Amino acid sequence: MLRQMFDMESSTYTYLISSDTTEKPVAILVDPVQRCVAQYCQLLKELSITLIAVIDTHVHADHITGSGLLQDETGCKILMSDQADVVGLTTSLPHLSTLDVGDVQLVCLYTPGHTNDSCCLYNPAQNYLLTGDTLLIRGTGRTDFQSGSAQQAWDSLTQLMKLPSETRVYPGHDYKGMTWSTLKEEKQFNPRLQVSDHHHYAELMASLNLPPPKFIETAVPANRNCGRT
Amino acid sequence: MLRQMFDMESSTYTYLISSDTTEKPVAILVDPVQRCVAQYCQLLKELSITLIAVIDTHVHADHITGSGLLQDETGCKILMSDQADVVGLTTSLPHLSTLDVGDVQLVCLYTPGHTNDSCCLYNPAQNYLLTGDTLLIRGTGRTDFQSGSAQQAWDSLTQLMKLPSETRVYPGHDYKGMTWSTLKEEKQFNPRLQVSDHHHYAELMASLNLPPPKFIETAVPANRNCGRT
Repeated sequence: MLRQMFDMESSTYTYLISSDTTEKPVAILVDPVQRCVAQYCQLLKELSITLIAVIDTHVHADHITGSGLLQDETGCKILMSDQADVVGLTTSLPHLSTLDVGDVQLVCLYTPGHTNDSCCLYNPAQNYLLTGDTLLIRGTGRTDFQSGSAQQAWDSLTQLMKLPSETRVYPGHDYKGMTWSTLKEEKQFNPRLQVSDHHHYAELMASLNLPPPKFIETAVPANRNCGRT
Repeated sequence: MLRQMFDMESSTYTYLISSDTTEKPVAILVDPVQRCVAQYCQLLKELSITLIAVIDTHVHADHITGSGLLQDETGCKILMSDQADVVGLTTSLPHLSTLDVGDVQLVCLYTPGHTNDSCCLYNPAQNYLLTGDTLLIRGTGRTDFQSGSAQQAWDSLTQLMKLPSETRVYPGHDYKGMTWSTLKEEKQFNPRLQVSDHHHYAELMASLNLPPPKFIETAVPANRNCGRT
Protein backbone atom coordinates (compact mmCIF):
# COMPACT_ATOMS: atom_id res chain seq x y z
CA MET A 1 0.00 0.00 0.00
CA LEU A 2 1.30 3.41 -0.94
CA ARG A 3 0.13 6.46 1.00
CA GLN A 4 1.19 9.95 0.02
CA MET A 5 1.48 12.77 2.57
CA PHE A 6 2.25 16.42 1.90
CA ASP A 7 4.22 18.94 3.93
CA MET A 8 2.83 22.36 3.10
CA GLU A 9 5.88 24.27 4.38
CA SER A 10 8.35 22.71 1.91
CA SER A 11 5.86 21.24 -0.61
CA THR A 12 7.50 17.85 0.07
CA TYR A 13 5.78 14.54 -0.55
CA THR A 14 6.49 11.80 1.97
CA TYR A 15 5.46 8.24 1.18
CA LEU A 16 4.40 5.48 3.51
CA ILE A 17 4.87 2.14 1.77
CA SER A 18 3.40 -0.70 3.79
CA SER A 19 3.11 -4.42 3.23
CA ASP A 20 -0.15 -5.59 1.75
CA THR A 21 -0.42 -8.52 4.15
CA THR A 22 -2.60 -7.54 7.07
CA GLU A 23 -0.84 -9.70 9.65
CA LYS A 24 1.99 -7.86 11.41
CA PRO A 25 2.22 -5.14 8.75
CA VAL A 26 5.55 -3.40 8.24
CA ALA A 27 6.37 -0.19 6.40
CA ILE A 28 9.00 2.25 5.28
CA LEU A 29 8.79 6.02 5.05
CA VAL A 30 10.42 7.73 2.09
CA ASP A 31 11.56 11.35 2.45
CA PRO A 32 10.06 12.00 5.89
CA VAL A 33 10.02 15.63 7.07
CA GLN A 34 11.25 16.31 10.59
CA ARG A 35 8.42 18.64 11.59
CA CYS A 36 5.85 15.95 10.64
CA VAL A 37 7.36 13.06 12.63
CA ALA A 38 4.69 13.13 15.37
CA GLN A 39 2.01 12.87 12.70
CA TYR A 40 3.72 9.85 11.06
CA CYS A 41 4.13 8.14 14.45
CA GLN A 42 0.46 8.70 15.26
CA LEU A 43 -0.57 7.11 11.95
CA LEU A 44 1.80 4.14 12.40
CA LYS A 45 0.39 3.57 15.88
CA GLU A 46 -3.22 3.78 14.70
CA LEU A 47 -2.59 1.33 11.87
CA SER A 48 -0.46 -0.98 14.10
CA ILE A 49 2.32 -0.83 11.53
CA THR A 50 5.96 -1.43 12.45
CA LEU A 51 8.29 1.04 10.76
CA ILE A 52 11.30 -0.98 9.57
CA ALA A 53 13.21 1.73 7.72
CA VAL A 54 13.28 5.28 6.45
CA ILE A 55 14.88 6.24 3.15
CA ASP A 56 15.86 9.67 1.93
CA THR A 57 16.07 9.83 -1.85
CA HIS A 58 18.99 12.29 -1.44
CA VAL A 59 20.44 14.86 0.95
CA HIS A 60 17.69 17.49 0.80
CA ALA A 61 18.43 21.20 0.65
CA ASP A 62 14.91 22.48 1.32
CA HIS A 63 13.75 20.70 4.46
CA ILE A 64 15.20 18.75 7.36
CA THR A 65 14.78 14.99 7.22
CA GLY A 66 12.86 13.18 9.92
CA SER A 67 15.08 10.08 9.61
CA GLY A 68 17.10 10.49 12.81
CA LEU A 69 14.10 11.41 14.92
CA LEU A 70 12.13 8.48 13.52
CA GLN A 71 14.99 6.13 14.36
CA ASP A 72 15.09 7.55 17.89
CA GLU A 73 11.33 7.04 18.22
CA THR A 74 10.96 3.63 16.60
CA GLY A 75 14.39 2.00 16.23
CA CYS A 76 13.97 1.79 12.46
CA LYS A 77 16.90 1.55 10.04
CA ILE A 78 18.04 4.57 8.03
CA LEU A 79 18.88 3.85 4.40
CA MET A 80 20.14 5.96 1.52
CA SER A 81 21.96 5.46 -1.76
CA ASP A 82 25.46 4.06 -1.30
CA GLN A 83 26.76 7.36 -2.72
CA ALA A 84 25.39 9.36 0.22
CA ASP A 85 27.89 11.07 2.48
CA VAL A 86 25.75 10.97 5.61
CA VAL A 87 26.64 10.09 9.20
CA GLY A 88 24.28 7.66 10.90
CA LEU A 89 23.08 5.45 8.06
CA THR A 90 22.31 1.87 9.06
CA THR A 91 23.19 0.58 5.63
CA SER A 92 23.28 1.86 2.08
CA LEU A 93 21.53 0.93 -1.12
CA PRO A 94 23.62 0.14 -4.21
CA HIS A 95 22.17 0.64 -7.69
CA LEU A 96 19.65 -2.12 -8.47
CA SER A 97 19.59 -3.44 -4.93
CA THR A 98 16.18 -4.62 -3.75
CA LEU A 99 14.37 -3.89 -0.54
CA ASP A 100 11.56 -5.99 0.90
CA VAL A 101 8.76 -4.26 2.79
CA GLY A 102 6.96 -7.41 3.84
CA ASP A 103 5.51 -8.74 0.60
CA VAL A 104 6.24 -5.53 -1.32
CA GLN A 105 9.52 -5.39 -3.22
CA LEU A 106 11.23 -2.17 -4.25
CA VAL A 107 14.25 -1.69 -6.50
CA CYS A 108 16.67 1.15 -5.81
CA LEU A 109 17.78 3.01 -8.94
CA TYR A 110 20.84 5.26 -8.62
CA THR A 111 19.92 8.46 -10.45
CA PRO A 112 22.56 11.15 -9.88
CA GLY A 113 22.18 14.63 -11.35
CA HIS A 114 20.06 16.68 -8.95
CA THR A 115 22.63 15.63 -6.36
CA ASN A 116 25.37 13.01 -6.62
CA ASP A 117 23.53 10.78 -4.12
CA SER A 118 20.04 10.79 -5.65
CA CYS A 119 18.10 7.58 -6.05
CA CYS A 120 14.63 6.52 -7.10
CA LEU A 121 12.55 3.62 -5.78
CA TYR A 122 10.73 1.43 -8.26
CA ASN A 123 7.95 -1.05 -7.57
CA PRO A 124 7.76 -3.20 -10.73
CA ALA A 125 4.83 -5.32 -9.50
CA GLN A 126 2.62 -2.36 -8.64
CA ASN A 127 3.98 -0.22 -11.42
CA TYR A 128 5.03 2.93 -9.60
CA LEU A 129 8.21 4.93 -9.21
CA LEU A 130 9.14 7.33 -6.42
CA THR A 131 11.31 9.80 -8.25
CA GLY A 132 12.59 12.07 -5.47
CA ASP A 133 13.81 15.27 -7.12
CA THR A 134 15.18 13.50 -10.20
CA LEU A 135 11.89 13.73 -12.07
CA LEU A 136 9.07 16.06 -11.04
CA ILE A 137 5.64 16.49 -12.63
CA ARG A 138 6.31 18.62 -15.73
CA GLY A 139 9.70 19.48 -14.23
CA THR A 140 13.02 18.09 -13.03
CA GLY A 141 15.30 18.75 -10.07
CA ARG A 142 17.77 21.62 -10.43
CA THR A 143 21.39 20.64 -11.02
CA ASP A 144 23.30 23.71 -9.93
CA PHE A 145 24.43 22.81 -6.39
CA GLN A 146 25.45 19.88 -4.15
CA SER A 147 27.49 18.06 -6.80
CA GLY A 148 24.62 18.38 -9.22
CA SER A 149 25.32 17.63 -12.87
CA ALA A 150 23.00 18.33 -15.77
CA GLN A 151 24.73 15.66 -17.87
CA GLN A 152 24.28 13.02 -15.17
CA ALA A 153 20.68 14.15 -14.66
CA TRP A 154 20.00 13.68 -18.36
CA ASP A 155 21.46 10.18 -18.24
CA SER A 156 19.37 9.36 -15.16
CA LEU A 157 16.19 10.69 -16.77
CA THR A 158 16.96 8.67 -19.91
CA GLN A 159 17.32 5.58 -17.72
CA LEU A 160 13.93 6.21 -16.04
CA MET A 161 12.22 6.70 -19.38
CA LYS A 162 13.11 3.11 -20.31
CA LEU A 163 10.70 1.81 -17.65
CA PRO A 164 7.15 0.90 -18.78
CA SER A 165 5.38 4.03 -19.96
CA GLU A 166 2.30 3.45 -17.78
CA THR A 167 4.46 3.55 -14.63
CA ARG A 168 3.03 6.04 -12.16
CA VAL A 169 5.39 8.82 -11.14
CA TYR A 170 5.27 9.92 -7.50
CA PRO A 171 7.60 12.90 -7.10
CA GLY A 172 9.46 14.29 -4.09
CA HIS A 173 7.77 17.67 -4.45
CA ASP A 174 5.06 19.43 -6.31
CA TYR A 175 4.43 23.15 -6.16
CA LYS A 176 1.12 23.19 -8.05
CA GLY A 177 -0.82 20.58 -6.10
CA MET A 178 -0.43 17.71 -8.59
CA THR A 179 -0.10 14.35 -6.84
CA TRP A 180 1.12 11.94 -9.52
CA SER A 181 1.75 11.53 -13.19
CA THR A 182 2.94 8.75 -15.51
CA LEU A 183 6.19 8.28 -17.42
CA LYS A 184 4.16 8.45 -20.63
CA GLU A 185 2.81 11.87 -19.70
CA GLU A 186 6.20 13.15 -18.68
CA LYS A 187 7.81 11.94 -21.90
CA GLN A 188 5.19 13.83 -23.87
CA PHE A 189 4.56 16.94 -21.80
CA ASN A 190 7.47 17.61 -19.45
CA PRO A 191 9.11 20.70 -21.00
CA ARG A 192 12.54 19.64 -19.69
CA LEU A 193 12.36 16.34 -21.59
CA GLN A 194 11.72 17.83 -24.99
CA VAL A 195 15.41 18.47 -25.73
CA SER A 196 17.44 16.06 -27.83
CA ASP A 197 20.56 15.34 -25.78
CA HIS A 198 22.56 16.13 -22.65
CA HIS A 199 24.20 19.20 -24.22
CA HIS A 200 20.84 20.84 -24.80
CA TYR A 201 19.64 19.71 -21.38
CA ALA A 202 22.69 21.33 -19.75
CA GLU A 203 22.01 24.55 -21.68
CA LEU A 204 18.38 24.50 -20.59
CA MET A 205 19.27 23.92 -16.93
CA ALA A 206 22.00 26.61 -17.02
CA SER A 207 19.49 29.12 -18.41
CA LEU A 208 17.17 28.78 -15.39
CA ASN A 209 19.21 31.13 -13.17
CA LEU A 210 17.48 29.95 -9.99
CA PRO A 211 18.02 31.66 -6.63
CA PRO A 212 19.71 29.52 -3.92
CA PRO A 213 17.28 27.36 -1.91
CA LYS A 214 16.20 29.31 1.19
CA PHE A 215 17.19 26.68 3.75
CA ILE A 216 20.26 25.14 2.12
CA GLU A 217 22.70 26.54 4.70
CA THR A 218 20.89 24.84 7.56
CA ALA A 219 19.22 21.89 5.83
CA VAL A 220 22.25 20.29 4.16
CA PRO A 221 24.50 20.14 7.25
CA ALA A 222 21.59 18.81 9.34
CA ASN A 223 20.68 16.24 6.71
CA ARG A 224 24.29 14.99 6.54
CA ASN A 225 23.60 13.94 10.13
CA CYS A 226 20.10 12.42 9.55
CA GLY A 227 18.49 15.66 10.74
CA ARG A 228 20.18 15.42 14.11
CA THR A 229 21.67 18.71 15.26
CA MET B 1 -9.10 6.74 -13.02
CA LEU B 2 -9.10 9.03 -10.03
CA ARG B 3 -6.59 11.89 -9.85
CA GLN B 4 -6.35 14.11 -6.81
CA MET B 5 -5.20 17.74 -7.04
CA PHE B 6 -4.58 20.16 -4.19
CA ASP B 7 -5.14 23.91 -3.98
CA MET B 8 -2.66 25.25 -1.45
CA GLU B 9 -4.54 28.52 -0.89
CA SER B 10 -7.72 26.89 0.45
CA SER B 11 -6.38 23.36 1.17
CA THR B 12 -9.07 22.06 -1.18
CA TYR B 13 -8.85 18.72 -2.96
CA THR B 14 -10.21 18.63 -6.47
CA TYR B 15 -10.75 15.27 -8.16
CA LEU B 16 -10.52 14.36 -11.81
CA ILE B 17 -12.47 11.16 -12.42
CA SER B 18 -11.95 9.86 -15.92
CA SER B 19 -13.18 6.83 -17.79
CA ASP B 20 -10.83 3.87 -17.84
CA THR B 21 -11.39 3.21 -21.53
CA THR B 22 -8.62 4.83 -23.50
CA GLU B 23 -10.71 5.58 -26.59
CA LYS B 24 -12.36 9.01 -26.43
CA PRO B 25 -11.89 9.36 -22.67
CA VAL B 26 -14.33 11.52 -20.75
CA ALA B 27 -14.10 12.95 -17.24
CA ILE B 28 -15.73 14.96 -14.53
CA LEU B 29 -14.12 17.37 -12.08
CA VAL B 30 -15.36 17.37 -8.51
CA ASP B 31 -14.96 20.55 -6.44
CA PRO B 32 -12.86 22.52 -8.93
CA VAL B 33 -11.26 25.74 -7.66
CA GLN B 34 -11.66 28.84 -9.82
CA ARG B 35 -8.03 29.97 -9.60
CA CYS B 36 -6.85 26.53 -10.84
CA VAL B 37 -9.07 26.31 -13.93
CA ALA B 38 -6.23 27.02 -16.38
CA GLN B 39 -4.24 24.17 -14.85
CA TYR B 40 -7.18 21.73 -15.15
CA CYS B 41 -7.76 22.77 -18.78
CA GLN B 42 -4.07 22.25 -19.58
CA LEU B 43 -4.19 18.73 -18.12
CA LEU B 44 -7.43 17.85 -19.94
CA LYS B 45 -5.89 19.04 -23.18
CA GLU B 46 -2.68 17.08 -22.66
CA LEU B 47 -4.58 13.90 -21.85
CA SER B 48 -7.11 14.48 -24.69
CA ILE B 49 -9.95 14.09 -22.20
CA THR B 50 -13.38 15.62 -22.79
CA LEU B 51 -14.81 17.20 -19.65
CA ILE B 52 -18.47 16.21 -19.53
CA ALA B 53 -19.43 17.70 -16.16
CA VAL B 54 -18.30 19.42 -13.00
CA ILE B 55 -19.86 18.70 -9.63
CA ASP B 56 -19.59 20.72 -6.44
CA THR B 57 -20.27 18.60 -3.36
CA HIS B 58 -21.91 21.68 -1.79
CA VAL B 59 -21.92 25.49 -1.90
CA HIS B 60 -18.43 26.18 -0.57
CA ALA B 61 -17.70 28.95 1.91
CA ASP B 62 -13.89 28.89 1.68
CA HIS B 63 -13.09 29.12 -2.03
CA ILE B 64 -14.77 30.08 -5.28
CA THR B 65 -15.85 27.22 -7.49
CA GLY B 66 -14.42 26.86 -10.98
CA SER B 67 -17.67 25.37 -12.30
CA GLY B 68 -18.92 28.38 -14.26
CA LEU B 69 -15.54 29.16 -15.79
CA LEU B 70 -15.06 25.50 -16.75
CA GLN B 71 -18.47 25.49 -18.43
CA ASP B 72 -17.54 28.66 -20.31
CA GLU B 73 -14.24 27.07 -21.41
CA THR B 74 -15.44 23.56 -22.25
CA GLY B 75 -19.23 23.53 -22.48
CA CYS B 76 -19.46 20.92 -19.71
CA LYS B 77 -22.54 20.41 -17.58
CA ILE B 78 -22.72 21.73 -14.01
CA LEU B 79 -24.26 19.35 -11.49
CA MET B 80 -24.98 19.55 -7.78
CA SER B 81 -27.29 17.90 -5.29
CA ASP B 82 -30.98 18.55 -5.98
CA GLN B 83 -31.08 20.46 -2.70
CA ALA B 84 -28.64 23.11 -3.96
CA ASP B 85 -29.98 26.65 -4.35
CA VAL B 86 -27.62 27.66 -7.16
CA VAL B 87 -28.29 29.57 -10.38
CA GLY B 88 -26.82 28.02 -13.52
CA LEU B 89 -26.98 24.30 -12.81
CA THR B 90 -27.52 22.12 -15.86
CA THR B 91 -29.26 19.48 -13.84
CA SER B 92 -29.36 18.23 -10.29
CA LEU B 93 -28.56 14.97 -8.59
CA PRO B 94 -31.18 13.33 -6.37
CA HIS B 95 -30.14 11.02 -3.55
CA LEU B 96 -29.01 7.64 -4.96
CA SER B 97 -28.97 8.86 -8.55
CA THR B 98 -26.14 7.45 -10.65
CA LEU B 99 -23.78 9.23 -12.97
CA ASP B 100 -21.82 7.56 -15.76
CA VAL B 101 -18.35 8.83 -16.57
CA GLY B 102 -17.74 6.60 -19.57
CA ASP B 103 -17.38 3.14 -18.04
CA VAL B 104 -17.08 4.50 -14.48
CA GLN B 105 -20.28 4.68 -12.47
CA LEU B 106 -20.76 6.95 -9.46
CA VAL B 107 -23.63 7.08 -7.00
CA CYS B 108 -24.68 10.40 -5.46
CA LEU B 109 -25.41 10.22 -1.73
CA TYR B 110 -27.28 13.15 -0.20
CA THR B 111 -25.48 13.90 3.07
CA PRO B 112 -26.78 17.14 4.61
CA GLY B 113 -25.29 18.51 7.81
CA HIS B 114 -22.24 20.59 6.89
CA THR B 115 -24.63 22.41 4.60
CA ASN B 116 -28.18 21.49 3.57
CA ASP B 117 -27.01 20.76 0.01
CA SER B 118 -24.03 18.48 0.73
CA CYS B 119 -23.54 15.27 -1.18
CA CYS B 120 -20.90 12.56 -1.48
CA LEU B 121 -19.95 10.56 -4.56
CA TYR B 122 -19.47 6.82 -4.20
CA ASN B 123 -17.79 4.46 -6.63
CA PRO B 124 -18.88 0.98 -5.51
CA ALA B 125 -16.84 -0.88 -8.16
CA GLN B 126 -13.58 0.88 -7.32
CA ASN B 127 -14.38 1.17 -3.66
CA TYR B 128 -13.88 4.87 -3.03
CA LEU B 129 -15.96 7.71 -1.68
CA LEU B 130 -15.51 11.44 -2.28
CA THR B 131 -16.79 12.87 0.97
CA GLY B 132 -16.69 16.63 0.33
CA ASP B 133 -16.81 18.31 3.75
CA THR B 134 -19.17 15.74 5.26
CA LEU B 135 -16.34 13.50 6.41
CA LEU B 136 -12.74 14.66 6.64
CA ILE B 137 -9.64 12.69 7.66
CA ARG B 138 -9.87 12.51 11.46
CA GLY B 139 -12.42 15.34 11.30
CA THR B 140 -15.82 16.37 9.96
CA GLY B 141 -17.22 19.53 8.37
CA ARG B 142 -18.46 22.22 10.74
CA THR B 143 -22.21 22.57 11.10
CA ASP B 144 -22.64 26.11 12.37
CA PHE B 145 -23.53 28.07 9.22
CA GLN B 146 -25.26 27.80 5.84
CA SER B 147 -28.19 25.69 7.07
CA GLY B 148 -25.77 23.34 8.76
CA SER B 149 -27.22 20.88 11.26
CA ALA B 150 -25.23 18.70 13.64
CA GLN B 151 -28.09 16.23 13.89
CA GLN B 152 -28.35 15.89 10.12
CA ALA B 153 -24.54 15.59 9.91
CA TRP B 154 -24.61 12.75 12.41
CA ASP B 155 -27.30 10.95 10.40
CA SER B 156 -25.26 11.46 7.20
CA LEU B 157 -22.07 10.17 8.83
CA THR B 158 -23.99 7.15 10.16
CA GLN B 159 -25.20 6.48 6.63
CA LEU B 160 -21.63 6.65 5.23
CA MET B 161 -20.34 4.29 7.89
CA LYS B 162 -22.66 1.57 6.57
CA LEU B 163 -20.59 1.35 3.37
CA PRO B 164 -17.84 -1.31 3.20
CA SER B 165 -15.18 -0.55 5.78
CA GLU B 166 -12.30 -0.80 3.28
CA THR B 167 -13.80 2.02 1.18
CA ARG B 168 -11.21 4.71 0.58
CA VAL B 169 -12.16 8.16 1.80
CA TYR B 170 -11.12 11.09 -0.39
CA PRO B 171 -12.06 14.30 1.43
CA GLY B 172 -12.80 17.81 0.17
CA HIS B 173 -10.01 19.28 2.28
CA ASP B 174 -7.10 18.33 4.44
CA TYR B 175 -5.09 20.77 6.48
CA LYS B 176 -2.32 18.38 7.52
CA GLY B 177 -1.26 16.99 4.15
CA MET B 178 -3.07 13.65 4.40
CA THR B 179 -4.42 12.50 1.03
CA TRP B 180 -6.84 9.67 1.83
CA SER B 181 -8.07 7.38 4.55
CA THR B 182 -10.56 4.51 4.82
CA LEU B 183 -13.95 4.27 6.48
CA LYS B 184 -12.48 1.64 8.82
CA GLU B 185 -9.80 4.08 9.98
CA GLU B 186 -12.27 6.90 10.44
CA LYS B 187 -14.64 4.70 12.43
CA GLN B 188 -11.79 3.82 14.76
CA PHE B 189 -9.74 6.99 14.95
CA ASN B 190 -11.83 10.00 13.93
CA PRO B 191 -12.36 11.82 17.25
CA ARG B 192 -15.71 13.22 16.04
CA LEU B 193 -17.08 9.71 15.51
CA GLN B 194 -16.40 8.40 18.98
CA VAL B 195 -19.61 9.85 20.45
CA SER B 196 -22.68 7.66 20.91
CA ASP B 197 -25.53 9.61 19.31
CA HIS B 198 -26.59 12.82 17.60
CA HIS B 199 -27.14 14.62 20.91
CA HIS B 200 -23.52 14.12 21.92
CA TYR B 201 -22.39 14.96 18.40
CA ALA B 202 -24.33 18.25 18.52
CA GLU B 203 -22.74 19.04 21.90
CA LEU B 204 -19.29 18.30 20.51
CA MET B 205 -19.84 20.46 17.42
CA ALA B 206 -21.30 23.32 19.51
CA SER B 207 -18.25 23.26 21.77
CA LEU B 208 -15.83 23.97 18.89
CA ASN B 209 -16.48 27.74 18.86
CA LEU B 210 -14.93 28.19 15.43
CA PRO B 211 -14.32 31.63 13.91
CA PRO B 212 -16.29 32.43 10.73
CA PRO B 213 -14.62 31.23 7.50
CA LYS B 214 -12.46 34.04 6.11
CA PHE B 215 -14.02 34.16 2.66
CA ILE B 216 -17.66 33.28 3.41
CA GLU B 217 -18.98 36.76 2.59
CA THR B 218 -17.60 36.62 -0.93
CA ALA B 219 -17.45 32.87 -1.60
CA VAL B 220 -21.06 31.90 -0.85
CA PRO B 221 -22.75 34.55 -3.05
CA ALA B 222 -20.30 33.78 -5.88
CA ASN B 223 -20.83 30.04 -5.52
CA ARG B 224 -24.62 30.44 -5.64
CA ASN B 225 -23.91 31.65 -9.18
CA CYS B 226 -21.38 28.91 -10.14
CA GLY B 227 -18.49 31.25 -9.33
CA ARG B 228 -19.67 33.81 -11.88
CA THR B 229 -19.62 37.36 -10.58
